Amino acid sequence: MGGVLKGNMLIAQSGGPTVVINQSLAGAVIEAKKHPQIENIYGALHGIKGILEEEFVDLKKEPVNNLKKVAQTPCCALGSVRKKPTEEECEKIFKIMQKYNIRYFFYIGGNDSAETAYILHQNAKKAGYEFKCFHIPKTIDNDLKENDHTPGYGSAAKFVAMAVMGDNLDNLSLPGIKVDVIMGRHAGFLVAATSLARIYKDDGPHLIYFPERPFIIDKFLQDVEEIYKKLGRCLICVSEGICDEKGNPIATKFIREVDAFGNVQLSGTGALGDFLAGIIKKELKAGRVRADTFGYLQRSFPGVYSEVDAKEAYEVGEFAVKCAVGKDMEGSVAIKRKETKKYSVYYQLVPLEKVAKETRSMPSKFINREGNDVTKAFLDYARPLVGKLPEIGRIKGYPVRKRK
Amino acid sequence: MGGVLKGNMLIAQSGGPTVVINQSLAGAVIEAKKHPQIENIYGALHGIKGILEEEFVDLKKEPVNNLKKVAQTPCCALGSVRKKPTEEECEKIFKIMQKYNIRYFFYIGGNDSAETAYILHQNAKKAGYEFKCFHIPKTIDNDLKENDHTPGYGSAAKFVAMAVMGDNLDNLSLPGIKVDVIMGRHAGFLVAATSLARIYKDDGPHLIYFPERPFIIDKFLQDVEEIYKKLGRCLICVSEGICDEKGNPIATKFIREVDAFGNVQLSGTGALGDFLAGIIKKELKAGRVRADTFGYLQRSFPGVYSEVDAKEAYEVGEFAVKCAVGKDMEGSVAIKRKETKKYSVYYQLVPLEKVAKETRSMPSKFINREGNDVTKAFLDYARPLVGKLPEIGRIKGYPVRKRK
Repeated sequence: MGGVLKGNMLIAQSGGPTVVINQSLAGAVIEAKKHPQIENIYGALHGIKGILEEEFVDLKKEPVNNLKKVAQTPCCALGSVRKKPTEEECEKIFKIMQKYNIRYFFYIGGNDSAETAYILHQNAKKAGYEFKCFHIPKTIDNDLKENDHTPGYGSAAKFVAMAVMGDNLDNLSLPGIKVDVIMGRHAGFLVAATSLARIYKDDGPHLIYFPERPFIIDKFLQDVEEIYKKLGRCLICVSEGICDEKGNPIATKFIREVDAFGNVQLSGTGALGDFLAGIIKKELKAGRVRADTFGYLQRSFPGVYSEVDAKEAYEVGEFAVKCAVGKDMEGSVAIKRKETKKYSVYYQLVPLEKVAKETRSMPSKFINREGNDVTKAFLDYARPLVGKLPEIGRIKGYPVRKRK
Repeated sequence: MGGVLKGNMLIAQSGGPTVVINQSLAGAVIEAKKHPQIENIYGALHGIKGILEEEFVDLKKEPVNNLKKVAQTPCCALGSVRKKPTEEECEKIFKIMQKYNIRYFFYIGGNDSAETAYILHQNAKKAGYEFKCFHIPKTIDNDLKENDHTPGYGSAAKFVAMAVMGDNLDNLSLPGIKVDVIMGRHAGFLVAATSLARIYKDDGPHLIYFPERPFIIDKFLQDVEEIYKKLGRCLICVSEGICDEKGNPIATKFIREVDAFGNVQLSGTGALGDFLAGIIKKELKAGRVRADTFGYLQRSFPGVYSEVDAKEAYEVGEFAVKCAVGKDMEGSVAIKRKETKKYSVYYQLVPLEKVAKETRSMPSKFINREGNDVTKAFLDYARPLVGKLPEIGRIKGYPVRKRK
């Protein structure tokens, strides 16, 4: 390659928001400002859509202190999009890149974004256009290959753990059966994190169901009944992505809408929770059965975030730019965990196509044999990513002797 | 009455939890420990149910530092109940009070709890049993008469304001129409608090609907369409208790279950949100329409609370005990706001029956003429109750000139 590639930089965000995705934006832009070979720093509004419409903002002019404030703000400061460009659109995008002399491109998103970056890089290579193309990971689902975990996951995990801590206390106050539906289309990492809510022995969640294991309604009802008989209450966390034995999402039984990628709409509806509460009510004849679907709060609630997650999200953005101004032409930044006793990570550039094609599921070692809870291995994995949770007090409850 | 009434104290919690209800418990118990005329301090588990079953715990033995930890923990440390005792049960309770020489009774709850306290006090009076009976207010609905506001409201209001701040950013990232369903059966105070989420001019919620105004579906669709045309997105907050012109809850169109008080189940289901998203999709032919029902998180989420609310919740518990060891025989503690420029309150004992019978709604001056937003008067009322909200940053977004 030889010599320094001079030109403009373009950065964009894609897919579902996270609470720390702007940390990655700030990390990349603040780093880029330090390198004179990066001339202008543009942000495309709403990902690929903004590139196609040439809707750019000048991020070099953004004051660093404002970028730092934006970093702490949830969701996509540049706007997001759920769109995978067609081949024709990729051609068009490539022409726009040339027109604006974009030589450095960073796409913050999940595996679909890595794929878009991969295609763009391939096009540039074919055309002999020197074009550095990087993917910066984010997803609350934690389902990117090559990564120990992904930015956004730790904070979403903290949110659901806290929500379930509270909901467990609510369920202790007014006992009954409660179903909480947690995000995660194909991977159970997020629903698994609800296990961190447990402090006292009888704390919920008492049952956790993952997309990685078939969800058998009879077995589910049996599990619930057993806990309910023992504790007089039962708190259940299910992933929105639970599937029957044939691999069909339970949610498809009553939801028909599909998104631009042909995926069934799982979030933004209470239907799955209401369905499960309904069958519990009917089959177990239990009195108080309720369902909550945590919804978009899991990826957007301000002020509740994991400090480790926020730091790493910043650093992956920064690292991508450092690679780009070095000799690397393309890649996806991956978070790797060191094999040390004390939690620590390092970042590594991996080929785009390794992250682009497929997503990963929860390893089997994280799910118990019955398929209705996590293992200690999961707890050890997740605790450092989430960090400190609120203290929960209980009265000691010294009993009073009954009088005659 | 003359002379000091010596005897035991009983305290219990009732109704839906709040994030600060244990502050009131701690405030009352820590204060009671200081007064030698209060001999034993008992806590009844699950309110009236625990009294009927004589399920008591000894709270005098509880270390103060544990009570302080419990105070910061959401939901009912003694357990709660949704039960209004029958006349027969009131008789039974009264006998239990005598058997345990309970001379001081404190019931933390909403207006139903005030009514229970009122009936018990009347029974004691008739029987000539010296019995001090107090109601300590709590409700996230903020619907107790005689109060400027109630403990629990400020924290729930902060939670929904923060949730909508995040959801507004989510909706900015991925534009569409979003419906958020907020708790509040008869009073719109909580849904009104979502207005505090607004910082920038185009921030949502763009529309707010209250139980106090008839919800006309055609008008609603017209409102949504107008905003959607203008902004390309629309964030709507509706109270779970919205009713049609005849006063029938919109939710009754698809929910049949009623609770022990004959109230329709509004929480713990996503049905209302899904219904509203469904009609928007159908009638407005809008692309991305989603609904979230914030559910029990609004009253139980740990770590997110209003400092003013926590302080006041502690103080109303403390104040009730101070009144009880003085010359007062009965009453409900009410929070009154001073007419000062800087926010400040005082507590006043009001007769139980004044709080017991009815609840209050939002005053008309808090709702705009169109019935789809709050007024400045509401914002001035609510801001000091909620306190500081997270900072939200936005990129300045300096535009880049399009190239030819």
